[in-house]
Amino acid sequence: MVAITVKGSSPVNAPAPRRRKRLLSVEAILDAALALVDETGRLTMGELATRLGSSASSIYHHLPGRDAILEALRDRMGQAIGAIPADQPWDTGLALWVRRYRDAFAAHPNLIPMLTGQTITDPTVLASYEQVTGMLLRGGFGEDEVVLWLSVVDNFTLGSALDLAAPDDVWSPSAPAGGESPTPRMDAAVRAAPRGRERADAAFELGLTALVAGMRAHLDAAADNG
Amino acid sequence: MVAITVKGSSPVNAPAPRRRKRLLSVEAILDAALALVDETGRLTMGELATRLGSSASSIYHHLPGRDAILEALRDRMGQAIGAIPADQPWDTGLALWVRRYRDAFAAHPNLIPMLTGQTITDPTVLASYEQVTGMLLRGGFGEDEVVLWLSVVDNFTLGSALDLAAPDDVWSPSAPAGGESPTPRMDAAVRAAPRGRERADAAFELGLTALVAGMRAHLDAAADNG
Repeated sequence: MVAITVKGSSPVNAPAPRRRKRLLSVEAILDAALALVDETGRLTMGELATRLGSSASSIYHHLPGRDAILEALRDRMGQAIGAIPADQPWDTGLALWVRRYRDAFAAHPNLIPMLTGQTITDPTVLASYEQVTGMLLRGGFGEDEVVLWLSVVDNFTLGSALDLAAPDDVWSPSAPAGGESPTPRMDAAVRAAPRGRERADAAFELGLTALVAGMRAHLDAAADNG
Repeated sequence: MVAITVKGSSPVNAPAPRRRKRLLSVEAILDAALALVDETGRLTMGELATRLGSSASSIYHHLPGRDAILEALRDRMGQAIGAIPADQPWDTGLALWVRRYRDAFAAHPNLIPMLTGQTITDPTVLASYEQVTGMLLRGGFGEDEVVLWLSVVDNFTLGSALDLAAPDDVWSPSAPAGGESPTPRMDAAVRAAPRGRERADAAFELGLTALVAGMRAHLDAAADNG
């Protein structure tokens, strides 16, 4: 007799599992942790264990605590960003990285303050910063400035990722019923602008262009002074 | 006999309050809500009522729900930012606004995703955007672009405010004990850069300068094309 396996289940003729609890894996823990962060905006080992139908000590067997889980989630973001094709000009490479970076965090805005609140130790993400560092150094940025520019780019990108979770209307028109608006210029600007995802995307591209132009102006000024 | 009143309490000769519960006020609710957000990263009416030793319905008597509480907290941020002195050049005025804006949110990073997730209806904050809109229009930015630039500035500023909650060491050196580091350029850049608050402040100022320079380049290009 041939044992027929169904994807994700045990072979039909295999002995019954000893425990009823779902078998934990690192991937299952991370899926549950990310879902918890997305839904509630926080991550506690107790709530994670409840969600997994498991215990905190079983989770610790796979991942040594909350910080390690967050670093593993950071790793997932880093995997989604991926490596940037080598030997590109710094501005092209940076723009590519920033677009992928924003995309990776777009669906997980609640994860952002958690990850910015803890030291980056994940090797995938450190390797990504190493690559961008190399790009900036080759572009002519000073070694003592690279970390500041990485911070600037992080701040702009994570702020832009948060913006993807904004409502379709960011600003409410403030006109009282039948009355004169106290914010007529803002109301007109909102009417003239795109809404929703279109607004967020257009702002991101405009800001990225401005930031790269400002970085280029900084390089030019440094070259003039040197 | 003259009833002596002590600030915040009942007149001495007034009848004793019927209930032992602390008297709720809008300010007390907002203080507790902000403390809850700062400590836990979330805001639920149930937890807020527990913290106040009150009930959700008593809170609703003062503020009609979670969204209204968040808008009132947004108002507090707007009050902290204050009005920008009129008739300044757009770049000077914008830089002043952005610095105050970051300062206002610096101590409340958990509030950021909550406020970016909901439509702005608070009159104080709308008035602040109206003022900045006027500044940008006078500076020569097109009415159809103002909202995009406001989004860019919001994203950069809120990302930079989140960065103030970062640990002293944002990137961990990835050298294994006694081994060669897989990220030598990043490690050197981190060693050459300031740490902690000094890093965050220097990055913020560098990014603000670059962003304003990029906005100026955009204006110049539009003038050349017009």
